[in-house]
Amino acid sequence: MRIVVALGGNALLRRGQALTAENQRENVRVAANALAPIAAEHELVITHGNGPQVGLLALQGSAYKPDEVFPLDVLGAETEGMIGYMIEQELANLMPNGKQFATVLTMIQVNADDPAFAEPTKFVGPIYAKSEADQLAAEKGWRVKKDGNGWRRVVASPRPVRILEIEPIRWLIEKGAIVICAGGGGIPAVQNTEGKLEGVEAVIDKDYASELLARKLNADLYIMATDVEAAYSDWGGPTQREIRRATVDGIGAYDFPAGSMGPKVDAAQMFVSATGRKAAIGALSHLAAIVGGYAGTTIAADGPALEWGDTDKKGKYS
Amino acid sequence: MRIVVALGGNALLRRGQALTAENQRENVRVAANALAPIAAEHELVITHGNGPQVGLLALQGSAYKPDEVFPLDVLGAETEGMIGYMIEQELANLMPNGKQFATVLTMIQVNADDPAFAEPTKFVGPIYAKSEADQLAAEKGWRVKKDGNGWRRVVASPRPVRILEIEPIRWLIEKGAIVICAGGGGIPAVQNTEGKLEGVEAVIDKDYASELLARKLNADLYIMATDVEAAYSDWGGPTQREIRRATVDGIGAYDFPAGSMGPKVDAAQMFVSATGRKAAIGALSHLAAIVGGYAGTTIAADGPALEWGDTDKKGKYS
Repeated sequence: MRIVVALGGNALLRRGQALTAENQRENVRVAANALAPIAAEHELVITHGNGPQVGLLALQGSAYKPDEVFPLDVLGAETEGMIGYMIEQELANLMPNGKQFATVLTMIQVNADDPAFAEPTKFVGPIYAKSEADQLAAEKGWRVKKDGNGWRRVVASPRPVRILEIEPIRWLIEKGAIVICAGGGGIPAVQNTEGKLEGVEAVIDKDYASELLARKLNADLYIMATDVEAAYSDWGGPTQREIRRATVDGIGAYDFPAGSMGPKVDAAQMFVSATGRKAAIGALSHLAAIVGGYAGTTIAADGPALEWGDTDKKGKYS
Repeated sequence: MRIVVALGGNALLRRGQALTAENQRENVRVAANALAPIAAEHELVITHGNGPQVGLLALQGSAYKPDEVFPLDVLGAETEGMIGYMIEQELANLMPNGKQFATVLTMIQVNADDPAFAEPTKFVGPIYAKSEADQLAAEKGWRVKKDGNGWRRVVASPRPVRILEIEPIRWLIEKGAIVICAGGGGIPAVQNTEGKLEGVEAVIDKDYASELLARKLNADLYIMATDVEAAYSDWGGPTQREIRRATVDGIGAYDFPAGSMGPKVDAAQMFVSATGRKAAIGALSHLAAIVGGYAGTTIAADGPALEWGDTDKKGKYS
């Protein structure tokens, strides 16, 4: 099978953990151990989040020279290098000699008139007091919004339209390489009035970017790996239940939290509707079981509308 | 022809210029304009330096949390992303639609027992006062050395032995993509006692790394593009003269400044000796003329031992 696995930010950094190089590497090593059995048997393309890492690089730049912080496209490119390197090295160390790897820098085009640019929703960077946030907004032209008790910068999260490096990525897979690409949802770029591509201050949702990638690569299976075992109906509520398997319409009968499970279910539905193939959502630690269909939530084009799973209310398998 | 072009750090940032994203992009745009005619007619692989960029990222990290500065392998990976992105985007904007590009993260293995590790020579990062340098050396285990009036960290510059992604890079070229890789001399890695590859605090010379790359790719021509027009005998002296063309032995009769032209001439000699093909050194702005053989210094396996060029003492063509 050809499988695209999107590693969630929370799969690469445990919540609350400091973002040191050592901690990142430790988590990447755990991820590599989960990916290795898949890499040994299947064509594998790996994408990953970069939220905490972009936040850290922005803080580093700001601490050094507040007026010369690099824009989000450049920071995104830096994180594709950093995270891709760690994933490639750790996974290669688990695979037989001769297995080929390539981490490919990935630009993804978005529409300059995407309505998301008028309504930025994606929080990036640190939390500020209101006065500080207002000052930054005035100085740098940022949009800021309330997040919990503080204020943060928000940027647009436009839909991915075109993956610039899709052909080279496809060639590499066909040659047998494991490819790491589209990190952080890809480096967002728009076509300017002269027809030239230029970076833009935005963040493409990683699950949507990876869906486009999986679709364009004719993947057999698109997996979103996170730190939650599956999609649940009534998440956190009294009737919470694990969805093991569903059709696009079957899972469409339920609502999922925006900003976390919601976009994942949406991306899974998009992939299955467009291709007739399967998408799955589940825990990175259960990756092999998800591929086998006995863990996580699988969305398929046919079969029963909905099957419930067997984890308990805390998401642990009983 | 298959051509490998190594862009020197000074070709990407003018001496003394601030390392803002805008300045980097402006210089990359100049480089892309020089590269575009070559990309249109030949198979092209682009490598680049990263010295100033690694220095900046280290300063940024240090300004934020001095105890959590990322190691050089991770910083190198970040710069491969950042610089590769800018080169790819700016060059792609000058080429016809449909031309394929891939920026490939590149690890390069060095020997753990390379004698360079005992005698670190490569300056990295900022200049410190002696007391501060000594303190950093004690705290972080750095080696420090005098550089001009100040003190700086020095790291080993071991010889490149193996390019981990050489096969994928070759596949991409054979498919017609322009490849950007081996930035900053590659991410240096050693095999540990368990046979696993791990990053190491070192800097591989970009010209040697690119020579290995050019050799392994069977390149027809290996060009080191810098901000100097050619190799000169008696550089800065009363009998300074431009070398236009030479054999390996012919240019071997002269000495060149260590740390600048010396390694370039050395890398050119290595490439020509190993392959029987041509290497060249010259100004990025003369790239097309260098390919044509009428600017820069070309080292070849045969022909006259030495031909002088026609630039004046300041390196300007008369």
